[in-house]
Amino acid sequence: MKVVKFGGSSLASGIQLMKVLDVVKNDDMRKIIVVSAPGKRFSDDTKVTDLLIDCAAKALLLEDTTEIFNKIISRYRDIVLDTGMDDSVISEISGNLTAILKSDKSNPDQFMDKMKASGEDNNAKLVAAFFNHQGITATYVNPKDAGLFVTEDHAGARVLPESYDNLFALRDYSGLVIFPGFFGYTKSGEISTFSRSGSDITGAIVANGVQAELYENFTDVDAVFVVNPAIVKKPQQVAELTYREMRELSYAGFSVFHDEALIPAFRAGIPVHIKNTNNPESTGTRVIRERDTSNGPVVGIASDDGFCSIYISKYLMNREIGFGRQVLEILERAGLNYEHMPSGIDDLTIILRENQLDATLEAKLIHELTHKLNADFVSIERSLSLIMIVGEAMRQNIGTTFRASRALSSANVNIEMINQGSSEVSIMFGVKKDDEHKAVQALYHEFFQEIEV
Amino acid sequence: MKVVKFGGSSLASGIQLMKVLDVVKNDDMRKIIVVSAPGKRFSDDTKVTDLLIDCAAKALLLEDTTEIFNKIISRYRDIVLDTGMDDSVISEISGNLTAILKSDKSNPDQFMDKMKASGEDNNAKLVAAFFNHQGITATYVNPKDAGLFVTEDHAGARVLPESYDNLFALRDYSGLVIFPGFFGYTKSGEISTFSRSGSDITGAIVANGVQAELYENFTDVDAVFVVNPAIVKKPQQVAELTYREMRELSYAGFSVFHDEALIPAFRAGIPVHIKNTNNPESTGTRVIRERDTSNGPVVGIASDDGFCSIYISKYLMNREIGFGRQVLEILERAGLNYEHMPSGIDDLTIILRENQLDATLEAKLIHELTHKLNADFVSIERSLSLIMIVGEAMRQNIGTTFRASRALSSANVNIEMINQGSSEVSIMFGVKKDDEHKAVQALYHEFFQEIEV
Repeated sequence: MKVVKFGGSSLASGIQLMKVLDVVKNDDMRKIIVVSAPGKRFSDDTKVTDLLIDCAAKALLLEDTTEIFNKIISRYRDIVLDTGMDDSVISEISGNLTAILKSDKSNPDQFMDKMKASGEDNNAKLVAAFFNHQGITATYVNPKDAGLFVTEDHAGARVLPESYDNLFALRDYSGLVIFPGFFGYTKSGEISTFSRSGSDITGAIVANGVQAELYENFTDVDAVFVVNPAIVKKPQQVAELTYREMRELSYAGFSVFHDEALIPAFRAGIPVHIKNTNNPESTGTRVIRERDTSNGPVVGIASDDGFCSIYISKYLMNREIGFGRQVLEILERAGLNYEHMPSGIDDLTIILRENQLDATLEAKLIHELTHKLNADFVSIERSLSLIMIVGEAMRQNIGTTFRASRALSSANVNIEMINQGSSEVSIMFGVKKDDEHKAVQALYHEFFQEIEV
Repeated sequence: MKVVKFGGSSLASGIQLMKVLDVVKNDDMRKIIVVSAPGKRFSDDTKVTDLLIDCAAKALLLEDTTEIFNKIISRYRDIVLDTGMDDSVISEISGNLTAILKSDKSNPDQFMDKMKASGEDNNAKLVAAFFNHQGITATYVNPKDAGLFVTEDHAGARVLPESYDNLFALRDYSGLVIFPGFFGYTKSGEISTFSRSGSDITGAIVANGVQAELYENFTDVDAVFVVNPAIVKKPQQVAELTYREMRELSYAGFSVFHDEALIPAFRAGIPVHIKNTNNPESTGTRVIRERDTSNGPVVGIASDDGFCSIYISKYLMNREIGFGRQVLEILERAGLNYEHMPSGIDDLTIILRENQLDATLEAKLIHELTHKLNADFVSIERSLSLIMIVGEAMRQNIGTTFRASRALSSANVNIEMINQGSSEVSIMFGVKKDDEHKAVQALYHEFFQEIEV
């Protein structure tokens, strides 16, 4: 049995649905279909999820939602018309969305999640109707009925372990199961969504629950590239990589596959196959437990901007047991999540996403760190990018740091910081944002183009 | 006015005292002399401080101390005989040590500190007598009378800020002031010592207090070397380096000058001049605020073994606000001081000195980290060395990391971890202890021998 997840662009129009039909018909092991909400049909298009967020925001502000409501419904209607189905599923979707819009708004996060989740939920109903219309038995299954339970962290829900056992029963359906991605239910029966692009997570959880032999993730690119194609033109594709490599890359800016979606697959040892709905013949990228690493130490290079560093220096800091803990406590009380904390003898640097820090919080933080910790000097530097080079084989490969720093040096990029722990699946370099593209290009050239020369 | 500190080997014998006399006579700006306890006369000799620790331990265990007591007194007596002084100072020293041995032992740390401090204290009395015997007016001054107040952390005392004002009065003495290093008094009048080799600290505090124009530190080497001579034969000498560079190097294994001794000099802007009592003509090493950095990015390479790493991995660690803080809290409660904490996405590594961890604590710690933090995997790796390359100019110098990692790579050394924060006065490499010498030699070759080739 295979669990197949289709992304938003694979479900954006009637033409796309016909491609999905071909994919599913082509392999009768494909039994459980996890769907996103309809995505973009063209680059300037708006995703249904974004329309729903807009609509929910207007509803919370008690503004008129008629126009945006109609826009959402017309997205579903276009698909129905394109595929020659009758209108009944549109009435159902429209009724459902109307009811949600009228529902209790006393908890805005809860309301927002209900609105967002309706994108996937209603699309699953539509896709199920589509398959049946095409003569293929398919059943829409709601996550509550399937027992997909999650925590109450709205827009950041985490699966509760009992869900896996519950989901095993999905195997018993005859015909296809069409399952909406992106959300589950709390134990008190409320909808709670995963973080954005969380349909990947649903797919992985379902694959784990039913003990699938493969989790296929259909998107709109032929494969995972070794580097962001917006930075390096026509980069190499990755044929195979491990779960850990994929997770590090996804986290640091690779948007093909959600970084939280890997662990349910990993824990059950289910390979993830990333494929292209628009080009299903392409071999895609397989994410597996172990891979042949003979083709070089680095499997991919990821980068992300929007980081800042907080620098704290205090004489004899290293002798104060508890200093680092106090720093982290101050950050925690301010609700800040940090990424890395490289340290010298009398100083430490904290790297965090800069969108967490507005000017007020920044001033407050500098004041608090200076006075509560009696620090000698505190400063904040903005506009940093983190670059991660990732590869399981770096552990056995002595020269990787050397090659990476040579490449950065030749490209005239100053390394602001380096972080390499003992796991050594990745090495992180901090650089100024202005240097990010230059740095990534240099690293790509070093690790992926030398072979050709 | 210059403050001059003489180390233990400069005061180990009558011959050495005659050299000290020459040094002091040679420059009449040398007014305040800070002294260590008598050190080694030859490589297998025992320092008086070690004899005192031995004696104190025996006394605490109620064992017989006669033999070791006599050994200590004979060290002072040898010096007195060699220099032709009369015996009166020996009676004074002997009476003082007898009284301390008989004193209250209910607080063993306090008793140990009293015993240890007597080494410097009695030697200061001896040196004062020696100068007077040589016709030079010299007054022994006790730190309590001079107002050198410190915290109660025995063997790790820190100066209280009011001391600086009090010490200013040392300027008023006519003739030389002979001041014992290594200890001060708590506000309740008890002796408390600095950490080992803390006479350097006393010298710096006194230099700051009297607003000296120079702090001269006389030891038994011609200069600070760019690398440990036990690892690289006949390494280059450092003519000048900044306080920050010296502090990083001292901390990471350079034993020429105590790492905590720099800040009192730094805060008052007093240059520190490290010189050789046995070769006072040698130019020595000057520690100053700013230096000419045109001779290369790296000023020195230090290394130290005896570290271990604790590796903790947990899926989605980066999403748990407070995870790092909880890890550090567990370490803190166990009384452990950590050095560095490089981190990945789902893992972090903590580097600490391994002598803090015995097998029992190690097992307890693994258990606690695993269960309290619900970690997926916790492991401890021992026998690591940290290597630090230090230099103010690294900030302006793009290729330093590249050159260092190239050197390590060529020497076939695997980099276990790297830590480079945004201060960039140093880059730390973690390597296996077995690779330490090979690694340091390779780095020395890279940064200090290329010029010659």
